[in-house]
Amino acid sequence: MALYLGFDAGGTKTDCALADENNVIARTQNGSIKPLRVTAAQAEANMRGLLDEISKQSGIDLKQVAVSCVGTAGVRFPQTKEWMEQIISRHAGGQIFVVGDETTALDAAFPGQAGVLVIGGTGSNILGRTSTGETFNVGGWGSALGDEGSGYWIGHEGLKRALRAHDFQQPTMIIEKVMRFWSAATLGDLANIGNQTPFPDFSQLAPLVVECAEAGDGVALDVLRLGGQMLGENAVHAVRRLRALEPDAPFPGIAFVGGILKSVAFVRESMVETIHRALPTVEVLPEAVDPVIGALWRARNRVH
Amino acid sequence: MALYLGFDAGGTKTDCALADENNVIARTQNGSIKPLRVTAAQAEANMRGLLDEISKQSGIDLKQVAVSCVGTAGVRFPQTKEWMEQIISRHAGGQIFVVGDETTALDAAFPGQAGVLVIGGTGSNILGRTSTGETFNVGGWGSALGDEGSGYWIGHEGLKRALRAHDFQQPTMIIEKVMRFWSAATLGDLANIGNQTPFPDFSQLAPLVVECAEAGDGVALDVLRLGGQMLGENAVHAVRRLRALEPDAPFPGIAFVGGILKSVAFVRESMVETIHRALPTVEVLPEAVDPVIGALWRARNRVH
Repeated sequence: MALYLGFDAGGTKTDCALADENNVIARTQNGSIKPLRVTAAQAEANMRGLLDEISKQSGIDLKQVAVSCVGTAGVRFPQTKEWMEQIISRHAGGQIFVVGDETTALDAAFPGQAGVLVIGGTGSNILGRTSTGETFNVGGWGSALGDEGSGYWIGHEGLKRALRAHDFQQPTMIIEKVMRFWSAATLGDLANIGNQTPFPDFSQLAPLVVECAEAGDGVALDVLRLGGQMLGENAVHAVRRLRALEPDAPFPGIAFVGGILKSVAFVRESMVETIHRALPTVEVLPEAVDPVIGALWRARNRVH
Repeated sequence: MALYLGFDAGGTKTDCALADENNVIARTQNGSIKPLRVTAAQAEANMRGLLDEISKQSGIDLKQVAVSCVGTAGVRFPQTKEWMEQIISRHAGGQIFVVGDETTALDAAFPGQAGVLVIGGTGSNILGRTSTGETFNVGGWGSALGDEGSGYWIGHEGLKRALRAHDFQQPTMIIEKVMRFWSAATLGDLANIGNQTPFPDFSQLAPLVVECAEAGDGVALDVLRLGGQMLGENAVHAVRRLRALEPDAPFPGIAFVGGILKSVAFVRESMVETIHRALPTVEVLPEAVDPVIGALWRARNRVH
């Protein structure tokens, strides 16, 4: 029986699974193997660690692998593809496919089919794919220009709205939490840190906004709900664009992935509610997808 | 009859007027005299240019001046005050007062009295002042955290909303104009420029958004109206705070200053409308105030 490796190569970690035609045999996680994120030596060591662990769990020599598929960001840079091929081929046999991580995420939900993927992590983006593989984005303009509902957006929008609430003498816990996090003694210090060049990494404030929402803070709740609503609006528009491109195809489903949508129920529920208000019959998958499963589907079906 | 000099020392230009107790005798404008903006030699040359022109217009030896008052930003830095005193005292006689430019702007409208000043230029801020000189701000958190309705906010918000409109297949001219301005060949280039570190100066895009609004662009019009509305809401809240601090005082009036409020009718009219909807009887001055007039009032009345 043929063997396959699937990878999800992110900026901070790499997920990997070994499978045969039907089942996952072994699975593990290690540090990043992405260029720009880690050195060549570190990527090589992380890959060796991943595959040693997979071999140990399964008792299988990975030189017998028929096809590997890696989903990763940055595939538009030729060096990303070459680098992935090099470090995998040193340890595993067979063909190697490198594709975008949004593609493997979509395949985890809708293998090779039409569908919509909502990505909500540090950044955000919405991907639509037709049954013939044509794709388009809604949103995803980066932290400076959009990425609504992302961790960066939640942190930034949370602080901006908290300061406006403070001006209007409305209560919020966000400012106090951010002051403590940034070691700002006064509101003037906070404004100086928030306006420094380059701007601070507002995504680090997202967990503080989520904590405030969990404690019932109205400003924080509004921000998380609005983020989910905007992601939902983008997803609805992606479905409508798919319907316009393929009016006779079955209704496309919606999947999601990313730390914010996975772990922040306020955002996820607001997104699902927004989608179902506009499109009551569309299927939204209940759990965040696992891109490694999509990578294995591509490897098994030799789709690249 | 005593003579007075009033200055409005901004980041790009300096306004100056010579007056007696009742009338302005001569008036002119020259480059900045602010530390950090220009060198000591340049500031000195600009000041000499200003005062030579004032002397020439009036035929008056400025060593006879009794009091000069400068309104400028950055008075919380002790060096700003010293620097202004030094370069003025080389050319003009008498006492020299250096105060915040928002103070001279307020005095231009409401000399020494309670009032609200809306500042809408590259940045934005709202200042409230009680009859006893106590002040507070509403907004003004800087370009990263607020400054709603400012040139920076209009450029940034205009581009963000234009990209979202584009995603939703709604028409707007803003993207095309920004692409030409930034020499971006594709939307990908535009996103890269907009997300560079540090972020680009979005205030440079404000004139493009205004041009689009003048041509009837719906997205641009929405941004300008929202900016004016948020400035108006801040001004209304400042009036309410003044009323709470001094319930028995006459109703405070609202003045405004800054390039956006002076030259962009869409923003100004939306602000005034928002104010009058909430506070129908409050007086909003029809024209942007001239801070030099406030500086002359302080000089004449020796208030500092």
